[in-house]
Amino acid sequence: MQTAPSSFDPRDFRRALGTFATGVTIVTARAQDGTPVGITANSFNSVSLQPPMVLWSLANTARTREVFSTSSHWNVHILSNAQEQLSNRFARAGEDKFAGLALDESAFGAPLLRGCSARFECRSAFQYEGGDHTIFVGEVVAYDSCALPPLLYLTGEYALASRKAAPVSTEPQADLAGASYSEDLLGYLLGRAHFQFMHHLRPALQAYQLSDADFFVLSLLSVRSPLSQADLAAHLSYTGVHFDAALCQTMLARQLLAAAPDAAGQAGPWQISAHGRQAIAAVLALATQAEEALVARLGEIEAAALRNLLKHLILATDPGLPKLWRSPSAP
Amino acid sequence: MQTAPSSFDPRDFRRALGTFATGVTIVTARAQDGTPVGITANSFNSVSLQPPMVLWSLANTARTREVFSTSSHWNVHILSNAQEQLSNRFARAGEDKFAGLALDESAFGAPLLRGCSARFECRSAFQYEGGDHTIFVGEVVAYDSCALPPLLYLTGEYALASRKAAPVSTEPQADLAGASYSEDLLGYLLGRAHFQFMHHLRPALQAYQLSDADFFVLSLLSVRSPLSQADLAAHLSYTGVHFDAALCQTMLARQLLAAAPDAAGQAGPWQISAHGRQAIAAVLALATQAEEALVARLGEIEAAALRNLLKHLILATDPGLPKLWRSPSAP
Repeated sequence: MQTAPSSFDPRDFRRALGTFATGVTIVTARAQDGTPVGITANSFNSVSLQPPMVLWSLANTARTREVFSTSSHWNVHILSNAQEQLSNRFARAGEDKFAGLALDESAFGAPLLRGCSARFECRSAFQYEGGDHTIFVGEVVAYDSCALPPLLYLTGEYALASRKAAPVSTEPQADLAGASYSEDLLGYLLGRAHFQFMHHLRPALQAYQLSDADFFVLSLLSVRSPLSQADLAAHLSYTGVHFDAALCQTMLARQLLAAAPDAAGQAGPWQISAHGRQAIAAVLALATQAEEALVARLGEIEAAALRNLLKHLILATDPGLPKLWRSPSAP
Repeated sequence: MQTAPSSFDPRDFRRALGTFATGVTIVTARAQDGTPVGITANSFNSVSLQPPMVLWSLANTARTREVFSTSSHWNVHILSNAQEQLSNRFARAGEDKFAGLALDESAFGAPLLRGCSARFECRSAFQYEGGDHTIFVGEVVAYDSCALPPLLYLTGEYALASRKAAPVSTEPQADLAGASYSEDLLGYLLGRAHFQFMHHLRPALQAYQLSDADFFVLSLLSVRSPLSQADLAAHLSYTGVHFDAALCQTMLARQLLAAAPDAAGQAGPWQISAHGRQAIAAVLALATQAEEALVARLGEIEAAALRNLLKHLILATDPGLPKLWRSPSAP
């Protein structure tokens, strides 16, 4: 325990407070001369249901304090996951924060931003002392909300939330020569999740007699084409697929691949054939269906969080792959 | 906009407020007769740095209100991801909430729970009116924190947070006959994440000349053994591996599999051989290393959130697999 308040290290104290996750809000008001003001705050919380009341707190040194202190109304916007830049804009001082923003009409004058997870129009009810901040309590006089996944703030960084899942099962692990294998291993979960997704593509893979290796080659060539045998091998090696001469010849013989128009000979470069294009389109049509069904089952909040975490993981484990998605013409 | 406060539907209003994510706290105090009291609250927030102050609010109808109103000190505990049941216990009325809980000593008398992400010992500073709740503002006189991932509450459910990742790349998608393929597709991200993880296992797979199919068969038999050919095929079909007679014979010839002691003949059931056990142990040793390195890179917060989401996804896309992890003796 840190037990001497006067000597708390402010950074350490903030870090400890930061373990309490919050959403992110922008609170807005309008000065008496009509100027809109707004500030990013994560000190929001609900207070009362009857009457409906919420609170937030503002530093006494904030330039907008005078406006909020004298406004009869202010609006709280709970930001959506897509509004990180808006949050940054309203957290900085000095620029015209409302420049270029489309606003909705408010019956009570304070600016209403768009694209938020929820909005609360409030009548200023109480202002309370709170150390170096003032606590503003407002009575909610109007609100709306939508299903946009909210933006979060945790330990000083933006974050996403995901609702807790029921465990896949409750049985624990097998032990094997000191190495244990359990359903809590990310390696296992990734494989099972990946293959359960791939399962939905198998009807099209079977209809076109595509192996997983064929599918990966055609997927790659549908994103970037033409590619030499060496480039194909380099892009695919992390999947365990060896794009060697044998696989290349088989795919050529099955008319899944074709030589690029400027191919110099047997060494490629290779592109996807008309038949290969038909095959991969059939697989990707199922993939699109599976993706939509999955997002519907997971919900948008979880889908956004899962995409985010998989990107984390991909960055954290990148074995130095060639950049697939950067177009060849990019710098 | 819902614009008639007196007629707000309380459920809808709570749902709108619920889009603001929060951590979960338990606030404790001690009655004058020494009885400990505690209540789950997500209405916590930080207020001031100098002096260090926090706030939370309590329903005026709460049975513990009298104790909190008259206590000179109370403690706020920011709950960790593992404390969901503790949160439920302190959210319910009527039972002895502290039964069986180990407490730490507090210099100021209020109970200090263990296993939390952070704890703040507070001197009661202000009590403010807030509609049907009272707002308690306390000056923090001691605190501690640790790196445990915190528990979250969002739209009425427990949740996990994950910090936002940088995008894997900024280039968009390829379009192909109406089906598009982009790095935002969960199907793509799952495959890439899975294979990047598998990449770390390839040295051991190559040393033992194990194909991915061999690896999946041996992994399965290391968790559940013996299994008939039909059971092996059923468990593995979702991976795209066909455990047919040819694969079985090859793995037997390579002494990766062996007939179970009570095998009736050529139909199995099969178990892992001593050589197979050695091979899979080598792979799983690399998997354990890769897992630890991955969790270290991602951080515990993200690793917990990713496990959670992959379990969501696995449940949402389960093609009706036999239950691998339920032991055969389970009901």
